[in-house]
Amino acid sequence: MEINADRLWRRIEDLSRITDPNRPWTRRSFSPLFLEGRRWLAGEFRAAGLEPVIDAGGNLVANLEGRNPNLKPLVVGSHSDTVPSGGRYDGILGVLAALEVAQSLVDSGERLRHSLRVYDFLAEEPSEFGVSCIGSRALAGALTPDLLDLVRPDGMTLREGLRFVGGDPDKLASVQCSPNGITAYIEVHIEQGRVLESEGIRIGIVTDIVGIHRERITVTGRADHAGATPMRLRADALVGASYVVQEAYRRALAASTEDASFVATIGKLEVEPNAINAVPGKVEMIVEARSGDEAAIIEFADALVRDLRSPLAALKLSVARELISHVSPAPCAEFVREAIRSAATDLGISARDLPSGAGHDGVFVSRIGPIGMIFVPCREGRSHAPEESIEPHQAADGARVLAAVVRRLDATRG
Amino acid sequence: MEINADRLWRRIEDLSRITDPNRPWTRRSFSPLFLEGRRWLAGEFRAAGLEPVIDAGGNLVANLEGRNPNLKPLVVGSHSDTVPSGGRYDGILGVLAALEVAQSLVDSGERLRHSLRVYDFLAEEPSEFGVSCIGSRALAGALTPDLLDLVRPDGMTLREGLRFVGGDPDKLASVQCSPNGITAYIEVHIEQGRVLESEGIRIGIVTDIVGIHRERITVTGRADHAGATPMRLRADALVGASYVVQEAYRRALAASTEDASFVATIGKLEVEPNAINAVPGKVEMIVEARSGDEAAIIEFADALVRDLRSPLAALKLSVARELISHVSPAPCAEFVREAIRSAATDLGISARDLPSGAGHDGVFVSRIGPIGMIFVPCREGRSHAPEESIEPHQAADGARVLAAVVRRLDATRG
Repeated sequence: MEINADRLWRRIEDLSRITDPNRPWTRRSFSPLFLEGRRWLAGEFRAAGLEPVIDAGGNLVANLEGRNPNLKPLVVGSHSDTVPSGGRYDGILGVLAALEVAQSLVDSGERLRHSLRVYDFLAEEPSEFGVSCIGSRALAGALTPDLLDLVRPDGMTLREGLRFVGGDPDKLASVQCSPNGITAYIEVHIEQGRVLESEGIRIGIVTDIVGIHRERITVTGRADHAGATPMRLRADALVGASYVVQEAYRRALAASTEDASFVATIGKLEVEPNAINAVPGKVEMIVEARSGDEAAIIEFADALVRDLRSPLAALKLSVARELISHVSPAPCAEFVREAIRSAATDLGISARDLPSGAGHDGVFVSRIGPIGMIFVPCREGRSHAPEESIEPHQAADGARVLAAVVRRLDATRG
Repeated sequence: MEINADRLWRRIEDLSRITDPNRPWTRRSFSPLFLEGRRWLAGEFRAAGLEPVIDAGGNLVANLEGRNPNLKPLVVGSHSDTVPSGGRYDGILGVLAALEVAQSLVDSGERLRHSLRVYDFLAEEPSEFGVSCIGSRALAGALTPDLLDLVRPDGMTLREGLRFVGGDPDKLASVQCSPNGITAYIEVHIEQGRVLESEGIRIGIVTDIVGIHRERITVTGRADHAGATPMRLRADALVGASYVVQEAYRRALAASTEDASFVATIGKLEVEPNAINAVPGKVEMIVEARSGDEAAIIEFADALVRDLRSPLAALKLSVARELISHVSPAPCAEFVREAIRSAATDLGISARDLPSGAGHDGVFVSRIGPIGMIFVPCREGRSHAPEESIEPHQAADGARVLAAVVRRLDATRG
């Protein structure tokens, strides 16, 4: 069983080119282009000797039957949708590395004890419905009716979207796994950061997928004519928001450690009315905190707003917070981490532990069994951007380690 | 000669109701609704005994012939276009107060020595072409070919827009006045601030229309994945921008005086990529400074950027500035201010000096002769917003003072 690095790289290039030509590399979930990518993928699955289906949760999945029907499956894969303008390698590396591992097994005639399930999970990235990890939620029984009722800007509901991609919102029970329903889930992914690259290390062994806590913080003052309102009569919401931004940065810096195991970000900020000649009346910001330490991320926005309320009131400003989402940290299973570490050592590939600061399908898959992730470096840590880039040998590293991990777990588990 | 306060108020109500019903009070320049307002206005002009025409610059104007053809005209008026969602009284008060003064002269049979010209200037507010004060620019010879080439989002050029409203871009020379071509220009307008209301004063005597200096300040860092980028590796442009916002506010507060004769504002701020899960890579802000002191507004952004360059560099951020526009202050003529002061005193109406923090057609009219402005309070200083509101007696105050100023200047000038 030997992975074919050239075939893997060709597939990565081919799938990445199924993109909105005006906005590379874009292949948004629930779009006609996404379905085109899926058709291409299904063809490659079949060429590899697999029989892909779309399950009720909208996942493209193929099963490579194991010798022992009593063993729970080993699960591999990732996702084929992208964020706008980003995602040339994000997601598809994991799907195609998983496919390559499965095909190398088929090609070699080798048959595992465990069934191997290869997934292209539906819509891991935030979709137009405002929710992410839709396919992996379905496996975990977390694709609830209120989520199915979500409506995207053009009026389509997620329920309809699921049908559009070939899923069936009325049969979600058929894809839901019981807790502890799988032997392990292993995903290859680009790091999306610069830790591996800056240290010249080839493989990251993910310790946990950090929890993500997001709140909307709104600073409200009073919109006024910028020419006719003396400084002393103003209640400028943007001035107040600037204190929130600075204080969030200062505190996150103090709490952070070198490997991104605590970070906080205000990435989105909207000013109202946002006119050249108007004193800002309202500013909405999304603050997010990420860490493996769940208490730390819950406390962050709370303390920030509590401590700033009084200084902002002195500027005639009020401040409010609203929970947007909270996802608990998902630790990676020690036995999977150990399998990755051993596989890398055997292959002579350097590796180090690091947290995943980004969310992944593994967060939901962890509800149905043990998970692990294999990171490869990406150039300058760029991700979710057109510049996202990896080298063929880095993709091959990920697939080789995945193949070795699958064999090791097949031999040792269950 | 007595102004008819009821007639004035009825006209204000009638014209204000010519609005986009879904977005009151909106009557954008160069729109079909604007032409509907103009048709209504022309009817009222005719009912008042005036003969309105549209001049080459797209202004609706009527002339009440004076007894002495050697005297330069007295000019009164304002504008009938609005900003989006705002402008129930902004502009139309000045047009209709001017019309009321003219009609009261016609009704009384009294004939002035000077000709009285009543203007509804075209597009005082920022238009879809990205330029304001279009009609008054034409009088000043400042409606240059490069401005006529401006294109609005639907592809129409200003040249075509001028024809759409009945003007003639090929005959602009016919409306251009020579410097010192008028005896005086006097405009009634709502204050758009809270100085008069907070002091219970009925009339503002404008000392000058402040100069407005606008620059784009861009802070550039590096967009990164918010989860995968440790705090120490970030170059967060929004953190840098927050220093610019705070420092601009602190300096403006220190430079300001109680009557808004110096103000500075960052009203517009855009984050890129402005995504929940991305470290901001770039922030663009528009900083504007307004004052009667031209050197102060030029120096403001310059000093701000100069002093922040080094602290921002320490955050791995660069900062750049770009001039957007500069309009010099336009002082009001002392003899016009004195006429307003005397008129208010005679009528028993309280008055105080104050600068106009907003720009007006007077900025361009000041290039062809002396100007003055009469402010009336508006509720809570709200302007350019649906809540913009004045009382009938406040409109009447403005028209009465204007009538008295016109008579006084007619008697004493030239």
